[in-house]
Amino acid sequence: MFVPLTPLSFKQRAVRLYGSKPCSVDGERRFTYTDFDLRTRRLAARLRAAGLQPGERVAYLAYNSEELLEGYYGVLEAGGVLLPLNVRLTPHELAYILDDAGVSFVLVDPDFVSIYESIDRLMNLRPTVIWLGATPEARDEPAYEQWIGAIDPAEVDVAAIDENALAELFYTSGTTARPKGVMLTHRSLYLPALNVLTTFPADDSEVQLHTIPLFHVNGWGVPQLLTAVGGSHVMMRKFDPVAALQLIQQEHVTRFYAVPTMMTILLNHPRIHETDLSSMRFIKIGGAPAPAEMISRAEAAFGCRVIAGYGLSETSPVITLAVPKASLAGEDDETRYRRQASTGLPLVGVELDIVDDRGNPLPWDGSSEGEIVVRSNVVMEGYWNDSDATQRAMWDGWFHTGDVATIDPEGYVLIVDRKKDIIISGGENISSVEIEKTLYECPQVLESAVIAVPDEQWGEVPLALVTVRPGASVTSEELASFCRDRLASFKVPKAFEFVDELPKGGTGKILKARLREHYWQSMAKRVN
Amino acid sequence: MFVPLTPLSFKQRAVRLYGSKPCSVDGERRFTYTDFDLRTRRLAARLRAAGLQPGERVAYLAYNSEELLEGYYGVLEAGGVLLPLNVRLTPHELAYILDDAGVSFVLVDPDFVSIYESIDRLMNLRPTVIWLGATPEARDEPAYEQWIGAIDPAEVDVAAIDENALAELFYTSGTTARPKGVMLTHRSLYLPALNVLTTFPADDSEVQLHTIPLFHVNGWGVPQLLTAVGGSHVMMRKFDPVAALQLIQQEHVTRFYAVPTMMTILLNHPRIHETDLSSMRFIKIGGAPAPAEMISRAEAAFGCRVIAGYGLSETSPVITLAVPKASLAGEDDETRYRRQASTGLPLVGVELDIVDDRGNPLPWDGSSEGEIVVRSNVVMEGYWNDSDATQRAMWDGWFHTGDVATIDPEGYVLIVDRKKDIIISGGENISSVEIEKTLYECPQVLESAVIAVPDEQWGEVPLALVTVRPGASVTSEELASFCRDRLASFKVPKAFEFVDELPKGGTGKILKARLREHYWQSMAKRVN
Repeated sequence: MFVPLTPLSFKQRAVRLYGSKPCSVDGERRFTYTDFDLRTRRLAARLRAAGLQPGERVAYLAYNSEELLEGYYGVLEAGGVLLPLNVRLTPHELAYILDDAGVSFVLVDPDFVSIYESIDRLMNLRPTVIWLGATPEARDEPAYEQWIGAIDPAEVDVAAIDENALAELFYTSGTTARPKGVMLTHRSLYLPALNVLTTFPADDSEVQLHTIPLFHVNGWGVPQLLTAVGGSHVMMRKFDPVAALQLIQQEHVTRFYAVPTMMTILLNHPRIHETDLSSMRFIKIGGAPAPAEMISRAEAAFGCRVIAGYGLSETSPVITLAVPKASLAGEDDETRYRRQASTGLPLVGVELDIVDDRGNPLPWDGSSEGEIVVRSNVVMEGYWNDSDATQRAMWDGWFHTGDVATIDPEGYVLIVDRKKDIIISGGENISSVEIEKTLYECPQVLESAVIAVPDEQWGEVPLALVTVRPGASVTSEELASFCRDRLASFKVPKAFEFVDELPKGGTGKILKARLREHYWQSMAKRVN
Repeated sequence: MFVPLTPLSFKQRAVRLYGSKPCSVDGERRFTYTDFDLRTRRLAARLRAAGLQPGERVAYLAYNSEELLEGYYGVLEAGGVLLPLNVRLTPHELAYILDDAGVSFVLVDPDFVSIYESIDRLMNLRPTVIWLGATPEARDEPAYEQWIGAIDPAEVDVAAIDENALAELFYTSGTTARPKGVMLTHRSLYLPALNVLTTFPADDSEVQLHTIPLFHVNGWGVPQLLTAVGGSHVMMRKFDPVAALQLIQQEHVTRFYAVPTMMTILLNHPRIHETDLSSMRFIKIGGAPAPAEMISRAEAAFGCRVIAGYGLSETSPVITLAVPKASLAGEDDETRYRRQASTGLPLVGVELDIVDDRGNPLPWDGSSEGEIVVRSNVVMEGYWNDSDATQRAMWDGWFHTGDVATIDPEGYVLIVDRKKDIIISGGENISSVEIEKTLYECPQVLESAVIAVPDEQWGEVPLALVTVRPGASVTSEELASFCRDRLASFKVPKAFEFVDELPKGGTGKILKARLREHYWQSMAKRVN
């Protein structure tokens, strides 16, 4: 019997089996799964009543909240495609994404009213706006609570869904100047939840603190997988160590995900010693490589299992978890921490390999370095409106991640470099090409090369090497200010260095690897 | 990215990640996953070389063994459809199945040589025969080990498989006189493994003792799910309590499945007190209802979690597991044992409900009794060559199990009766219609009604109520002998009662419920 694979069936099961259990906690608001279900289906009914057509895009510009979590189900129940926006982007970037995706509805947190007004001026489209809270003064669009309040919940026929239909669209910064829309289907959202649960189980007693933004590669699998087992979602608008520790104690949180930067902040916060962390069971570290020492410190501080994981927007998202094999039990703690800090083991449902430039597989000997390729239902359908980029990333039956790794004979992956020109800072992907393109727009700049350099707090940060046009002059401060007007603040290079010329290869391509060497030479490996 | 869902990917992953780990233990023979993979692919290569065409059926008449386990992968790798036969059936029944399925190859355990020779005489087809061991005297077909030995392993392109193609065919005794072939696809074998692992996790340290025949509804999910996580399979030719206890101690077995009859034998066996059972983690009781008292005794004796589960051949197989919800922790032991002995909670991936005769859903109030219906990818495609039976079982978008149950507000299912006229004896399905049809062939019999009556050892056994033709006479012994010639021994009624007439309803249908009442009245519920 064919039944479509869709995350909507996870909520359906949670309502039947865990209806009176807490589904979500957001500040003072608490909803059971039955409440949550009525709310998402009212959202679905309202979106349909307001004219949403099947396959149309519904964007959210919001911090983590009850309403954003509802969007993960209600938008799909309405037949729409969910597009959660990264709130850290600039109005320019956001306007580009909204236009590129051709959105019909935007649900906006009132905190972002002035940003939205800038977006509004830059955007060609005029989507319907709903405010996730009170409608700001001088605006006349509806407020969410009233908007979804006065309508009967939609009836949803999960069995009638096309599992290969587009369900979510996430924009990711890649190697290109413009963010690209990653297309995920119902099937490619359903299966990853089972893959992760098979490797690292969860049950209905789990309480997950949503420390990572749901719009972020690191956070977005959880609305599905936690709901599948009837766990509880604790929302956190944005990461704050004091609030996080308070919520862990107050809500008896059992698990959360963190990027290394967040974990460093938590581990060094004095409050950690006064917080009751006894409910904690599991922390996943992702978004950037974590040193083994961080894993061991975190296990000691939180008294629970802490493991690294790896994923990409394009792989919906988790594809490896650094779970120690049970058959390796008995290894000393140091070895175990190193394993738990590695990129990890491929999950059930994920075929992963390393290949050379021609796509030939390389040996799993712990030393051969090749690009990680993935063949799995968790891989996106492609990039929205960008078949060229799709073909560059997906060929020969595999998705090419751009990350370079070794795999040891036990199957543990270890990322050693990134083939694609991406900087990962505090868990955010930054395209060096995007920054370079921005700098080229500055009249004084002749050429530039943006590279990642090590940074204690953020893991890595962008640094720009710049050659100035003959006769012109410009300061670091002027360049920073120029970038700040055009790029999200985390993308602005932390330093500018002026050089006479940039090293180039035979084809005229700037040799970034050589530039990077200087900054990374003190570290044996770029990633532990 | 679409990648076909197929259990073959489970083995592929196990070979990559757990290649040097023990995959299987069968007596003195031990194979790693790498060994196992080479053997299944040699089997695949040989089947292809011997002319197997895609979609052709390959039957096994065998006890649990390394070779049978290899068939679960090798036959599919060859593009064939696996058909494991129930070795307890008679030559008549087996010949019918082999003809009905139109098999091309039969792999036979030499223990069954005389049975196979009877089958051979009764069967219309002439499939290729391979002997799983030494070729018996007076036969000239190849022996398995030599047959697969001298060929290069087949290359298998898992990505090229059609996930909706038929992969396995299991014959089940239902309400009809003839066993019916349950058609399972690659997709309907892949997803159940993830459903079970999500609800009851397993990792690569698991060692499963195959106490239940792999050809049996209760045993057949394990070749897939245990392989997915890289666990080890310990084969047991047929259930024997002393051998089972020995293997648990010797192989550090962590889990096995049992029917209640097997558990009773184990719990009452004196050897259990002398056996080191400390490696045990999990026992699933299935195939027939288990009393709560058995669960508590088994937990005490084996020192591990013991839970009931429910499934059918048509649902590939497990659809519920009686796992106590974590959110119900704190219930007293008696309540917990009762839950763990119930039919259980629907798994992730399984939509289950109870309905009235018209298919209308009934409330989950713990008292409304309705037929269990299932909508899930784990449900078969239909019955082989029997679209009428398929339509009777699958309508309105649901598979109708024929089992009558209540569901409580927490979602726990409890089977209270069987709508279909099936007797379950020691975990085996017996069709009362099949026995009645056999009795009607006896010239002295006018009418008969076969019903289930309680039995201490087997749970229930068939009893035949018979009216004799005017002027004729027949004894119980004669009827038993008549049946033994035509039916598997477990199907032969344990008693015959001669009556003057059988109670009938308005339409002339025999009122079996009224007949059963007399035998079951001392039990509050037919199932605990």
